[in-house]
Formats: sequence, C-alpha cells, structure tokens
Amino acid sequence: MTSTSSPPDPGLHALFDSFSEFGATAGGGVHRLCGSAADGQARDLFAQVVRDLDGTVRTDAVGNQFGLLALAGRSDAPLVMLGSHLDSQPQGGRFDGTLGVASALRVGAALVRAKAAGTAYAADLCVVNWTNEEGARFRPSLLGSGTYAGHHRAEAALAIRDDDGVTLAEALAAIGQRGTDPAPALPACYLELHVEQGTVLEAAGATIGIVARNWGATKIEAAFIGAQAHTGPCPMDLRRDALLAAAYAIAEIRAIADRWPGRVHTSVGRIRVDPNSANVVPARVALSVEIRSADDSVLGEAGALADAALRAAAERARTGLSIRDRVERPIRPLPEDVCDLVALAAEETGHRAIRMDTVAGHDALSLLGACPTGLVFVPSVGGIAHNEAETTSPADMQAGLAVLLRAADRLCRAGGEPARAIRGDAR
Amino acid sequence: MTSTSSPPDPGLHALFDSFSEFGATAGGGVHRLCGSAADGQARDLFAQVVRDLDGTVRTDAVGNQFGLLALAGRSDAPLVMLGSHLDSQPQGGRFDGTLGVASALRVGAALVRAKAAGTAYAADLCVVNWTNEEGARFRPSLLGSGTYAGHHRAEAALAIRDDDGVTLAEALAAIGQRGTDPAPALPACYLELHVEQGTVLEAAGATIGIVARNWGATKIEAAFIGAQAHTGPCPMDLRRDALLAAAYAIAEIRAIADRWPGRVHTSVGRIRVDPNSANVVPARVALSVEIRSADDSVLGEAGALADAALRAAAERARTGLSIRDRVERPIRPLPEDVCDLVALAAEETGHRAIRMDTVAGHDALSLLGACPTGLVFVPSVGGIAHNEAETTSPADMQAGLAVLLRAADRLCRAGGEPARAIRGDAR
Repeated sequence: MTSTSSPPDPGLHALFDSFSEFGATAGGGVHRLCGSAADGQARDLFAQVVRDLDGTVRTDAVGNQFGLLALAGRSDAPLVMLGSHLDSQPQGGRFDGTLGVASALRVGAALVRAKAAGTAYAADLCVVNWTNEEGARFRPSLLGSGTYAGHHRAEAALAIRDDDGVTLAEALAAIGQRGTDPAPALPACYLELHVEQGTVLEAAGATIGIVARNWGATKIEAAFIGAQAHTGPCPMDLRRDALLAAAYAIAEIRAIADRWPGRVHTSVGRIRVDPNSANVVPARVALSVEIRSADDSVLGEAGALADAALRAAAERARTGLSIRDRVERPIRPLPEDVCDLVALAAEETGHRAIRMDTVAGHDALSLLGACPTGLVFVPSVGGIAHNEAETTSPADMQAGLAVLLRAADRLCRAGGEPARAIRGDAR
Repeated sequence: MTSTSSPPDPGLHALFDSFSEFGATAGGGVHRLCGSAADGQARDLFAQVVRDLDGTVRTDAVGNQFGLLALAGRSDAPLVMLGSHLDSQPQGGRFDGTLGVASALRVGAALVRAKAAGTAYAADLCVVNWTNEEGARFRPSLLGSGTYAGHHRAEAALAIRDDDGVTLAEALAAIGQRGTDPAPALPACYLELHVEQGTVLEAAGATIGIVARNWGATKIEAAFIGAQAHTGPCPMDLRRDALLAAAYAIAEIRAIADRWPGRVHTSVGRIRVDPNSANVVPARVALSVEIRSADDSVLGEAGALADAALRAAAERARTGLSIRDRVERPIRPLPEDVCDLVALAAEETGHRAIRMDTVAGHDALSLLGACPTGLVFVPSVGGIAHNEAETTSPADMQAGLAVLLRAADRLCRAGGEPARAIRGDAR
C-alpha cells in the first residue's frame, strides 16, 4: 500500500454489476425499494461477500447490515466504518448508494489481503449497508443510519408505514432482514463514498469531491383537508378543493427559489390525493415539501415563506391545513481532519480533488457529530441522479475506490484516528 | 294503479339498506368500486331480487345486468327499461345510482303484483344495473350503458385497465360477472331515477326534478412529461418538473370558471405522479380535466382555454405535454314527451316537479338519441354528493319511487310509447 496509485480493481465492476441485477429496470436503472424482494437479494449478496472474506455479518433491529472484518487481531480494537446503502428510489439509478457499498466491500477485500500479506493494522473494518436511506418507501430518509446514530428509536422506526400500510418491521421480516444482533459501537471514523448527483465536479474538471459542508434542509409534510364533492353539480364557490390548494402551494414554493437564484432549492416531489377520481373534488391531499440552502438565514427565511405559502394556499382554496411533520436539517461543516485525510489519499493516488458542499442528504450526515465522519464524491455524468440514466464512468469508479482504499488503509493502520492517519503514525 | 298517490313502500327502504351494506364505510357511505368484491355482492342481490319476482337475469359481455320481467304475455312485446348503477365512487355516497336501481326493482315488484291482480300490460319491464357508471376505477365513466348504446365496442371496454393494470374483463371475471348473454334490444323507453347531487330542487322547494337538458362536458386526459432528477443537487433551472407543470395547469383551469361565474364548472379530480417520492423531481404526471357548461359556445371557449392552459403550463415548467384523450359530451335536450309523462306522473302522485338541467353525467345520457329517454331527480340534502354524507330523505325516496312507478305503469300499459302513455291509451 505504498504505491502512488493503486492498480484498477476489476472485481469492483463485477460486484457492482451483480448488485445492479437486483431490481434492474428496462431503462438501465434499478427499482429496489427498501424492504422489497430485490432489496432482500442485494442484502443477501452483501452478506455473502462479507462471509467470503471470513467476516461476520450483524443485522440490527432496523435491518442495518454490519460486515465486520477483523484486521487488528485483538478483541478491543477500534473500528473504521465504510459504507452507504443498497435501497434505491423508484425507477432509480444503479450508482446511488450501491457504489459506496460495493467499493467498501472491495476495500475490505484489499485490506484482508494486505493483512494476510503482513500489514499490521490497529483497527478492524466494518462495512455497512444502511436501511432506508432513500426515504422513498418509508419516510423519513436516512432512517437506518439515523437510528444507529441515536436520532430515532428503533421501535418508532419499525412502526413507520409505507403508503400501503405495511410497517418497516413487516417489510424487513418478509425478506428475513429484521435482525436481532447488537449494532457495533460507534466507529473511530466513518467514511462514505457516493456519487455526486450534481455537476460541480464535472464543471471543475475534478475527480474527487471532498464534502466539507452540507446544505441545510427543511422538510415539511403537509396535508390540505377539503370536502369531497361531485365535480359536476357542486357550485364552484362551495367547493373546498384540496388538490387546488396543493397546486397553489406547489407553484408558490417553486417561486421561493427564484428569490435567491442558485442559493435555494425547493421542491414538492410527492403528493397523495384522496379519493383521486376524475369526477370527485379531492377531499384530502398530502404533500412533501423540501427547502434546501447552504445559508442559515436564507434557509430560515425560505422555510418561513414555505410555511406562509401553505397557509395562503389553504385559505385561497378554503381548505384546512395540517402540518404533520416539519424537520430542519442544520447546515454543518464536516470535520477538517477527515477532509484533510481524504485530500491526502487523493493526492497519493493521483486524483484531482476539490472541497465542496453536498446538497443532498447522505448517511454520513446521520453520523456527523456522533463520530469523525467523511463523505467523498465521484462525478455523476451530466449530474443525472434519481434517474435510470444515472452514470459514473468506470475510471471515476476506480478513482473513488482508490481514494477510499488509501484513506481506509491509513485509518486502519493508525487505529482509526484521522490525525494519526494523516501523519502515518501506527497506533 | 288509479289512486292519486301511491302508498309508501317500506320494501324500498329495506332493499336500499341491504344494498348499502355492501362496501359500507365507517363514515356512513359506500366504497364499492366497479368489479370489486362489494360490487359482486350488490350484483348478486340484484339478481336474487329479480329471480324472486320470477324474472330472468341476463348479464352481457361488459357485465351489464338486465332483469327481465314478463308483463305483456307475448314473446315480441316491447320493453320499458328502468335502472341506474350499483358501483360507487371511492368513499362515496349510498344513494348515487343505487337509489335508482332499488326503486326500479320495487317498481318491478309492484307491476308484477298488478299484473297478477289483472292489469293488462302491453310491454315487458327490464330493470338494469349498468357497469362502471362512475368511471372511478375504469375510465371513461358511463362505460356499460355507453357500450349498450353502441358508443364503445365491448372488446375495447373489456381491455380498459385500472391504475393497478387490472382489466375490466379480469375484474368482472373475478366476481363472476363477465356474462355471455345477449343484451336485450333497445327499449321503447328508458327511465332513470337518480339523486340530484345539487341544490336546485332544495332551492326551488320541489321534490321531483324532470331533467330537460344536460350540461355539456369536455374531458381531457393529459400528461406532463418531465425529467426525473434529485430534488437536492439538481439546479433549479435544469429541472423539468412534471408536478410543477400540473400545479400551474390546475390553478389556471380553476381560473377559467371565474370568467363565467355559475355557468362553467371546471375541475382536476385525479392526478397520478411518477415516481412520487419526496426527494425526486417528478418525471411524469397524468391528470384528468373536466370542463362543464350548458352553453355550447361557452363550453367551446372554456375548453380551448383549458387546452391553452395545459400547453402554457408545460412550457413554463419546461416539460412535454401529451393529450391522451379528449372527449366532448354535447349539450342536448331530453325528449319532451318523456318529460311530459314524468310531469304527469308527478302531478298524479301529488309531488311538486320542476324542469331542470343535469350537470353530472348519468347512464340515461348514454341512451339519449338511441331511444326515448327520461331522467328524474329527487333532492340531495345540502347538495352533498360523491361523499359519504350524501343523503336523500325517506319521504323524497318514496316520492321518487311513486313517480317512477306511475310513469312505468302508464308506459307498460301503452306498449312503452311515451305519447300513448300520456294519453292513457292501451296499445
């Protein structure tokens, strides 16, 4: 592990392609919702790969899979954790989450090999697959990692229902993934490789993104309560149309982004209409609002405008308004020493790196504050994400793996401490 | 059948309450979508009631149930047809459709009794339950009656799929209602009793509405085609958000109604969003638009404005637009002699009647033009419709039955011809 650039690992592509078969869509993506049969298949492969490395798989109560690889040779060794998630959006991309898990498993294979060849490690490795990162089937997103980090109680997470009324507990049990193992203690350091899902790296001509800060997000689950009526005879001025209220809100929430061009992202991606029949005035519409910004005061102001937009829409359409949930994800820096370690690993493997923001949420943000945490991006072609056409080039996949491997190797030699890992100190 | 007012029929309420049990909701309504198990139960009761009257049930290819009651005593007798539908909206009302079917069955019982007591009839009676009037599960609405009247081919109707991909043929087969019987020939006259679903009768202090004209309707099935993307990193100006396009369209289509207050009703009652995940920019949104008016030129102008609103919304949100279907239901008068017959029946039974429009579509409109057709309304309390709280008072139920019975008795004596029935001529 002393060469300036690691040789390519063909095993990464073979493993990645195997994961991509589970829930593969005709359009070249994957449809692998949390707790689905396809998710179960991907999880089974994850466990098999860990076992093939003589590792141990622990599955906790919310289905997080921890693949433990003993490198340090003592029972109280600190842990270096690498991973991401294997669930996808509906008709989603193959790379989102899966690239991070597959790369972490390949790092595990390399470190196990290096140990066998005589390298001395002072930390064990844990490769993790987090449950329900996407928040597509069960809300909120980042559910498995958030539970591990102590933001949610496992019982509450397991009781969350999808739109068909199935609980997370039931979905996990159906695929044999409702575990009973204790989760490992918090690691000395957590590192996650992920595709950027934006165009910043492409625009900068860089291969590695070192995430130094996350955009904050305000997520609102709102519902407009109208009155079910016949779309024919019911006079217009007596209608209380919940879908009309939602339409007013969606348009106004989009307009909020124009007040701070490029600095605020707003969206309504999900809506549920009841009874949703062509000739019935909608009685109830639930919708999911997101406001994102890297500026605290702007985020606060935009969030307040979104609240006001929801109220104004309800008033204009004469419906009720119910705010079921309102979550604020703060803007935070990622630890500088972990960023510096990734920068060193990029330099050593010959890849151009820049420091950047993440706009999207990732499991690494769940662990931020609980332990030293790093997040590494590789480019997404054209920034296409949450889309079947999402792609990262084979060369960039290898670059990401090489940086992750170099950083993990340094961390495991140094007992998991980022500062020591940079200095090259063995523990 | 010569008294000026018929005695109340307690059997109507017993039969109506029995139908109301199938698909009963906690909120006091019914959820009895076309082809559902509850629909199958209601259809089985319909058939049983007909058989208990020594009638014959024919079920045609699209599941229309025809209950034939021989009154005239000869094989080539003309037919008088009475009926409506037993399917409901999601979380719909108990009266919509079912009151018309239950009343028609009670008319059948009364005429069979009268015949046994010596009354001479020159027409047979057919009580009909039309398939998929609501258009809630399978679109378009009025599907069974429209197929009977020759507006759709049975093969095409049977191939229509619900949102889960189940065809009408499969849904009917699952409840044993995909028939093979030939439908009876067009009747000499068709009469339908229905709840008003509006407030015109209440406002006028009348008990019987004689529908003299229907509002026209333009129904548009449109879809916005955007690009699936991540709601986080994807720059706002690169998004092609299909739900945003739909929101612009819904707001603008509502505004069209304000150009002609009280004369145009507009709505978007149904929307389907893909992939419908909180952090995915929607790729595709399908929606159902309705424009209704009693004025041909206004309807044409409002329809053109709706088309323009859809195009403008797509342009503004940078999505594609696909118009999958656009149906115009014309404004037409109902035959004057049938209206006069209903007016006479109301007068003879002592109920105040007014002539009025129907804004909603009903099966009677499918048959309009194919045979002499009449549509009779009784009041809906507060105009509440397509809602679990939909109600018609017991007295108004009896009034509707009395008028229907009187008109049917006159028709059957006169061989089904409305003009003869008014004059009281036997055939």
